[in-house]
Amino acid sequence: MEDLAKLTDLGKPRVVIVGGGFAGLELAKQLRDVPVQVVLIDKQNYHNFQPLLYQVATAGLDASDIVSPFRKILGRQKNFYFRMAEVQSVDAEAHMLQTSIGLINYDYLVIATGSTTNYFGDEQMEANAIAIKSIEDAIELRNTVLANFEKALQMGDAEQMNSLLDFVIVGGGPTGVEVAGALSELRKHVFPCDYKELDFKQMDIHLIQSGPVLLKGMSAEASQKSLEYLEEYGVKVVLNSRVKSYDGYTVTLSTGETLITRTLIWAAGVTGAPIPGLRPEALLKGNRYKVDQYSRVEGYTNVFALGDIASMQTPEFPEGHPMVAQPALQQGRQLGHNIPRLLNGHPLEPFRYDDKGAMATVGRNRAVADLKLPGGKDYRTQGLLAWLMWTFIHVISLVSFRNRFAVLLNWTWSYFSYDKGDRSIIGKAKDPLRVKIKPPVEQMVTEPLKD
Amino acid sequence: MEDLAKLTDLGKPRVVIVGGGFAGLELAKQLRDVPVQVVLIDKQNYHNFQPLLYQVATAGLDASDIVSPFRKILGRQKNFYFRMAEVQSVDAEAHMLQTSIGLINYDYLVIATGSTTNYFGDEQMEANAIAIKSIEDAIELRNTVLANFEKALQMGDAEQMNSLLDFVIVGGGPTGVEVAGALSELRKHVFPCDYKELDFKQMDIHLIQSGPVLLKGMSAEASQKSLEYLEEYGVKVVLNSRVKSYDGYTVTLSTGETLITRTLIWAAGVTGAPIPGLRPEALLKGNRYKVDQYSRVEGYTNVFALGDIASMQTPEFPEGHPMVAQPALQQGRQLGHNIPRLLNGHPLEPFRYDDKGAMATVGRNRAVADLKLPGGKDYRTQGLLAWLMWTFIHVISLVSFRNRFAVLLNWTWSYFSYDKGDRSIIGKAKDPLRVKIKPPVEQMVTEPLKD
Repeated sequence: MEDLAKLTDLGKPRVVIVGGGFAGLELAKQLRDVPVQVVLIDKQNYHNFQPLLYQVATAGLDASDIVSPFRKILGRQKNFYFRMAEVQSVDAEAHMLQTSIGLINYDYLVIATGSTTNYFGDEQMEANAIAIKSIEDAIELRNTVLANFEKALQMGDAEQMNSLLDFVIVGGGPTGVEVAGALSELRKHVFPCDYKELDFKQMDIHLIQSGPVLLKGMSAEASQKSLEYLEEYGVKVVLNSRVKSYDGYTVTLSTGETLITRTLIWAAGVTGAPIPGLRPEALLKGNRYKVDQYSRVEGYTNVFALGDIASMQTPEFPEGHPMVAQPALQQGRQLGHNIPRLLNGHPLEPFRYDDKGAMATVGRNRAVADLKLPGGKDYRTQGLLAWLMWTFIHVISLVSFRNRFAVLLNWTWSYFSYDKGDRSIIGKAKDPLRVKIKPPVEQMVTEPLKD
Repeated sequence: MEDLAKLTDLGKPRVVIVGGGFAGLELAKQLRDVPVQVVLIDKQNYHNFQPLLYQVATAGLDASDIVSPFRKILGRQKNFYFRMAEVQSVDAEAHMLQTSIGLINYDYLVIATGSTTNYFGDEQMEANAIAIKSIEDAIELRNTVLANFEKALQMGDAEQMNSLLDFVIVGGGPTGVEVAGALSELRKHVFPCDYKELDFKQMDIHLIQSGPVLLKGMSAEASQKSLEYLEEYGVKVVLNSRVKSYDGYTVTLSTGETLITRTLIWAAGVTGAPIPGLRPEALLKGNRYKVDQYSRVEGYTNVFALGDIASMQTPEFPEGHPMVAQPALQQGRQLGHNIPRLLNGHPLEPFRYDDKGAMATVGRNRAVADLKLPGGKDYRTQGLLAWLMWTFIHVISLVSFRNRFAVLLNWTWSYFSYDKGDRSIIGKAKDPLRVKIKPPVEQMVTEPLKD
């Protein structure tokens, strides 16, 4: 078993939080002065500000700008303990977790494991596509884009060169729209200077969306305007179309059309990341736990679920809240308020979602925002004002002062210089030529070198 | 063959520079207005400011603070071309390089491949130690240190816990001294707050130096003072001692003494990184090319070598110049001056080394400096003034304005907050438990978890 005997709060009830995303981190903070032992378990030793992952993927920000180690954030909180581990299963009867570092018991278990990329069972897609769900994903995508261009310089054959310059993004939600916008900004302002021998008129960015609109769930104005912005940027948006298959080179769409690319970015869906061991009936479709209005997993009294992994069905949200930061944060806060009530035998207070609306950014001065004003009125805006609001809200929402300062500096720099962040290839990249095409690309490099 | 047919300077002589360290990069810049085609080949797409690698390794700086992509630095230089490739061999008769992306021919070849870690043939050491010679090394070391502490929290056994908390640094040159100093600053100001459950009185930092003094080659004052600083910091400096073996757990010294550590940092030597194919007689011991006073490799008229890989024997430096930044920079500058003379049939001018002295830093306000004033006078200082000079010189020497700004900000922040940079574990880490010790550490985690 995990040796937690050194913990100083023995005798106090132990709240084990699995996952340090928005929900888990917020709950841990809220429990600061509550007489419990807070044990946060995460695979990583850092919190990652997911809304800006796409900026890491597109060389707008460095990974270090949007991550913050848990020990740094909460190191001074006396009742806080962190363990870097993977949770393998839960034994709810024994109040015990099986983890990669041994057994850990709990009095209250809070599952805040978030979601993972959903390939809908398509293994070929999973092997060949790149997702943007973790810091490692984002770094891999950035490195792959840059490695593609280095490789493209060797290609004698036009189609093969194009396969390295072209990008297909699947999924017209905020991530897909934001990545498409960021890549087209790089194409316009940055890549032509870095790679003067390549012709960036040849670089196509396709955005494939299964439905009839982008940013489904936002207002018609937001959907329409984001489409206009992307088209102004030269992104080829394909609506009402799904990707049927991708072998690492050829993308086949449901319309029968094919596209050639070495880099398909998969932003088409997420699914909950549950922990084995709880009642199967508690798990709804989409792999989310069915929770009551106190975030309690159905059938349990001391097991809670928050954020993406929780589906709290309400009249307004019959399939649970949107899998974004705000519900997670608010649920974390609410549970932090309820746990002391639980300890004191007071009745729990139900969760009420304060919907603040949604935003997405396409690029410089171009964003869309559907806001809910206090009182419930809608306020919709697109363009510069929306972009300023988006920028402001993302900077102030970052976890540490250091992150906020770094992001603000980087963005200010980029805004005035039209440049982006560091483009060094450090760490993993997908080998762009991992899928062998006939005739082998290596044989295409045949031009004699001539001075 | 590499398809360079798109290059715009066909017909101009081609200067191929292998390696974009201080020497290669400086030469490429110097050739800006010379009627040649400059082709820089490097395994990485970025220049890395090696003197500050140890700060990346010890979480003082982010990797992005000290790297700069070649295309960013020189993208606007019209005659500059970059290829990311590994050079496999040279055929000097055919004026041709074999590379990972095909054949590349040259009119003038400049070898600036620098040096690699020298394990003196000890394969067990190479497998188990961590070096600090590349960005990837530095990131791996940082991640490993942090992962060690996460792992140490599980250890029931005191020796095994100690093996994760203790560090052995081999080599008392600038890198060894700087790493030892930085680790002891972390031990004092940072780790106790991050890992409040660990007892950092148990964390030992050993610095093993084969000779009788640290910073060999610097003045007696510098050697003595650096030793005093490290001892004030609680570093256990072992002089006149070599490491005989290291199996990933037990370090055996030439004195017979043994130390236990999961992390041995190897800073004990470097060796040149030559390219196969040149006359074996041109290669001296230490794998450096014998060059004349014009940096020409002995026996060739159009092959040059610069920096660490070059040994230019002079009365003052009978074994070649020190393998540090200054000779590399100055040789790059001199060759940049000589290449146009060569093209115009003018006699070449010999290299004269302008020795500016040497510096090393131990920690906050503590550094040693042996400076050569103009006119050749020695000026030696230690402490705050030396530290300020070290800081100033390193900031202004960084390649890009962005790097300078980032480093200055990070250092200012750290100075006043007593904090360090980001401590997220992103990317590769050596598994601290990769060497299995009996009884297996996993079995040591036996304490029942008790609330």
